[in-house]
Amino acid sequence: MTTPAVADLLGVLAYGELVAFERIAADAAHAPTVGDKIELGRIAAAEFSHFEKITSYLQAHGIDPQVAMEPFVDVFNHFHENMAPNDWYEGLLKVYVGDGIASDFYREISAYLDEDARKVVDEVLSDNGHSEFAINRLREAIALDPKVAGRLALWGRRIMGEMISQAAMVAGTRMALAELFVAKNGPESGNELSGVVNRLTVAHSRRMDALGLAS
Amino acid sequence: MTTPAVADLLGVLAYGELVAFERIAADAAHAPTVGDKIELGRIAAAEFSHFEKITSYLQAHGIDPQVAMEPFVDVFNHFHENMAPNDWYEGLLKVYVGDGIASDFYREISAYLDEDARKVVDEVLSDNGHSEFAINRLREAIALDPKVAGRLALWGRRIMGEMISQAAMVAGTRMALAELFVAKNGPESGNELSGVVNRLTVAHSRRMDALGLAS
Repeated sequence: MTTPAVADLLGVLAYGELVAFERIAADAAHAPTVGDKIELGRIAAAEFSHFEKITSYLQAHGIDPQVAMEPFVDVFNHFHENMAPNDWYEGLLKVYVGDGIASDFYREISAYLDEDARKVVDEVLSDNGHSEFAINRLREAIALDPKVAGRLALWGRRIMGEMISQAAMVAGTRMALAELFVAKNGPESGNELSGVVNRLTVAHSRRMDALGLAS
Repeated sequence: MTTPAVADLLGVLAYGELVAFERIAADAAHAPTVGDKIELGRIAAAEFSHFEKITSYLQAHGIDPQVAMEPFVDVFNHFHENMAPNDWYEGLLKVYVGDGIASDFYREISAYLDEDARKVVDEVLSDNGHSEFAINRLREAIALDPKVAGRLALWGRRIMGEMISQAAMVAGTRMALAELFVAKNGPESGNELSGVVNRLTVAHSRRMDALGLAS
C-alpha cells in the first residue's frame, strides 16, 4: 500500500536524484582532467539510475512520478540557484556534503515507511564510492593550498544551513510527512525532531572532519 | 589484437560519448518540462554507459582509455564551443542530427575493424529510441510555429558542415586510420572516400526530411 507520505518521500528523493544528476554532469563538464570528468560522469550516471529505480517503484504502485515530484521542483531549483558552486572544488564539496546530508535525511524518514518502500530507499542511498573520490581530491587541494580550507569550511557551513532550512520548509508544507512523524512519535515529536537535526549535524561534522575542515 | 587504428577509433568514439553525455545532461537541465528532462536524462545516461563499455574494452585490451582519447579532446571541445545550441530545439536537433552523423561515420570506419572491435562499436551505436523522442518534439515545435523550420534547417546544415570538416581534420592527423583505409581500398581510396561522404550526406538528408526540413 502506498500512502501519500510514501509518495512524498519517494517524490522528493526522485527529483533530488534527477537534479543531482544534472548538476554533477555539469560539474563533470568543468572537471580539470579527463580522469576527473570520468569519475564525476560515473557518479552522475549512478544518480540517474537511482532516479529510474524510484520512478519504476512509483509507477509499479500506480503513482505518476511527475505528480509525486511536482511539489518539490521549486524548492530544489531554488536551492541549486542559491548554491551554485564557484569552482570545481566547491562543486565537489557540494556533491560530498550535500549528498551526505540528503542521504542521512532520507534514511531518517525512511524509518517511518513500510519495509517495501524502505528497501528502495536503502538501495538508492548506497554510496557508490563517490565520497572517497571527493575526499581524496579535496584533501589534495587543501594540502596544496591551505587557504582553500577556510573558503571550503565556509562553503560547507552554507550548504548545511541552506539544506536544513529547505528541509524544514518542505516538511512544513507536506502534511502527510509531518503527520507520519507525529503519529509515530506522539508527544515526543518535538524531542524527536531535535534528535533528527542533531544526528544530521553530527554526521555533517564528521564529514567535514574527514577533510580536516571546521564545521 | 588491438592495432593503433582500433585504439584511435575507440578513443574518438569514447570521448565523443563522454562529451555527448555532458552536453545532453546540460540540455536536460534546460528542458521545458520535467517529462522532457527525464527523456534527455535517460539519453545522457545511455551515452555514459556506452562510454563505459568502450573504455572497458580498451582496458581489457591493455589500452589506457585516457591515452586513446587524448588526441581527440581538442577537436570535440572546439566543435561544441562553436556549436553551442541557442535554445532547447537547437539542442534537440543537435542531438538527433549530430548523433546520427557520428553513428554513420563510426559504422563506416568499423567496417575496417576486426569482428571483436566491430561488435563493441555496433552495440554502442544502437539507437536507444532517442531519435523518436527528438523527432516528435521537433515536429510539434515546427507545427506550432512554422518560422522555426527555417532556423532549424539552417542549424542542421551548420552541424553537418562542421562535423564533416572536423572529421576530415581528425582523419588527416591520425595516420593509423588513414592507412587502414588506404590499405583496404588501394587505388580506389579516393573514390571510396567520396562514397563515404556521399552516404553520410544522403543519410543526413533523410533525417532532415523526417522533420520536414530542407537539408
